[in-house]
Amino acid sequence: MKHVLVVLPVEDRHVHKLEEAGKGCSFDFTFGEEPTAERIAQADVILGNVPAERICASERLELLQLSSAGADPYIKPGVLASNTVLCNATGAYGKAVSEHAFAMTLMLQKKLHLYRDAQRGALWSDAGTVVSMADAVVLVVGLGDIGLRFARMCKAMGAYVIGVRRRAGERPEGVDELCLTEELDALLPRADVVASFLPGSPGTYHTYTAERFARMKESAIFINCGRGGAVDGAVLADALQQGRIAAAGIDVTDPEPLPADSPLWALDNLMITPHVSGFYHLPETFERVVDIAAENLSAHLAGRPLRNVVDFETGYKR
Amino acid sequence: MKHVLVVLPVEDRHVHKLEEAGKGCSFDFTFGEEPTAERIAQADVILGNVPAERICASERLELLQLSSAGADPYIKPGVLASNTVLCNATGAYGKAVSEHAFAMTLMLQKKLHLYRDAQRGALWSDAGTVVSMADAVVLVVGLGDIGLRFARMCKAMGAYVIGVRRRAGERPEGVDELCLTEELDALLPRADVVASFLPGSPGTYHTYTAERFARMKESAIFINCGRGGAVDGAVLADALQQGRIAAAGIDVTDPEPLPADSPLWALDNLMITPHVSGFYHLPETFERVVDIAAENLSAHLAGRPLRNVVDFETGYKR
Repeated sequence: MKHVLVVLPVEDRHVHKLEEAGKGCSFDFTFGEEPTAERIAQADVILGNVPAERICASERLELLQLSSAGADPYIKPGVLASNTVLCNATGAYGKAVSEHAFAMTLMLQKKLHLYRDAQRGALWSDAGTVVSMADAVVLVVGLGDIGLRFARMCKAMGAYVIGVRRRAGERPEGVDELCLTEELDALLPRADVVASFLPGSPGTYHTYTAERFARMKESAIFINCGRGGAVDGAVLADALQQGRIAAAGIDVTDPEPLPADSPLWALDNLMITPHVSGFYHLPETFERVVDIAAENLSAHLAGRPLRNVVDFETGYKR
Repeated sequence: MKHVLVVLPVEDRHVHKLEEAGKGCSFDFTFGEEPTAERIAQADVILGNVPAERICASERLELLQLSSAGADPYIKPGVLASNTVLCNATGAYGKAVSEHAFAMTLMLQKKLHLYRDAQRGALWSDAGTVVSMADAVVLVVGLGDIGLRFARMCKAMGAYVIGVRRRAGERPEGVDELCLTEELDALLPRADVVASFLPGSPGTYHTYTAERFARMKESAIFINCGRGGAVDGAVLADALQQGRIAAAGIDVTDPEPLPADSPLWALDNLMITPHVSGFYHLPETFERVVDIAAENLSAHLAGRPLRNVVDFETGYKR
């Protein structure tokens, strides 16, 4: 009998759904308690994100189904045994994260961050000209579920959208031009908005170098709702302070939480949110996480193909 | 020979365009200088907003073509002679104002105003759950060019849109339900977003009473990018402080500028911008204003029907 450890913050209806999907298994629900290394060692299947250092490459573990889209801590050598299949929750976060990134972009285009600052000083003062999404060229870097939804929102407002992804393929609806990662340098000077949704992996670490910010328009807005490691905080601060770009909005930093003494906090033309775009801030996100977990548990037990299997080389789903 | 006074901040290309449209007229361009009552008294046509108190019901004035969408100071008795035709610049501001209102709405839905406040204190702190435009019922009150553009943006994000206007007619594309102003009370309890684009006129003054805020959902977001007089500041402050609605975003106040000692400035769940959604913050807005002025000047000289003629009863275009 397979043993399933569930570390998701489930309610009754989720328990029923997961037990239905894993008929014949024994279940261990933690209900918010931190699972011990012992409970982890007994699991054939884990649903949810356990602390990576407690897995100790357990060979018993057949399937680790994450509740996050990011898989970075689990793809490091020594965390998972070679027989463990790792799946993420790509698809659960697309709506929440893309909407957050889109709201941030429009906020910066209309200078609402500056008007909020002025409001705090009871100042009725004009911050000058603004730009329109309808006239923007938007470069979307990372064209998974989140990036594609973001692209479509921009396009619905009238933007011209260039999507950038690792592999060639058919141009998805909502993207005007489809390009490859190696073309990034040539694309940056064209963009009014550069929106990054890259996952955390060695291949995406510090993608946005000082040279790349220098290639962007001085009027460009940079958005990062992927992982903080894609840009070095000091490089971003310098680009914003030197006016190499006009403004930025980031929901992710490196490290997180951003230390209170980071110079990033005080930059007027930077908007920071504390990695809240995803998580379960949009309540339906958790429902989707449970759906993916139930679907993959059932598929795993029946020997059917799983969805969202993570590629250890890239940190993306395969 | 007709005499045309132009108080718009024109550049060379606009001068050429207007002189072309008004062939045979003599022109007086103020280039930013305040026009004296004397210069105003000599004008058969005025293009742009002159101070209302200097017009003195000049009977010589045949056409006053405003550069604003709002016409409130000019429809008051004694400002214009009965033979003067008043036209506004409806259509020039639709893109700029609707985008500003839309950005404000998304900002409030994602709590970005609270995250900006936290950022100013270097605080990495979670503001809790958010809502999605895709799940929202949006009530758009005032369905002119601005309101309709706003409606279409919300709909493109997945919202269900109810449009409210004064007169019955065909339901425009981008609106799911078309209702009349007298149905407003019944509609308010259904709305997640109430977005108001009413012009300033006696009929719209203090439309949003305490009773109407009490009819709204406690989770509702109220947006006003019409005229400040549509809501009494004390009533709005009370609704926000008592939690009758969740948040509000306003680009207009009554009076303007909002006095530095107004209690509105300090409300966390209110976002204030200083009447900047329109004006010429989106540079193309001014090009559209000049186009309307040129078109109406030429139509007036040729005796053709004018566009955007203002109804003195309502302050709207007829």
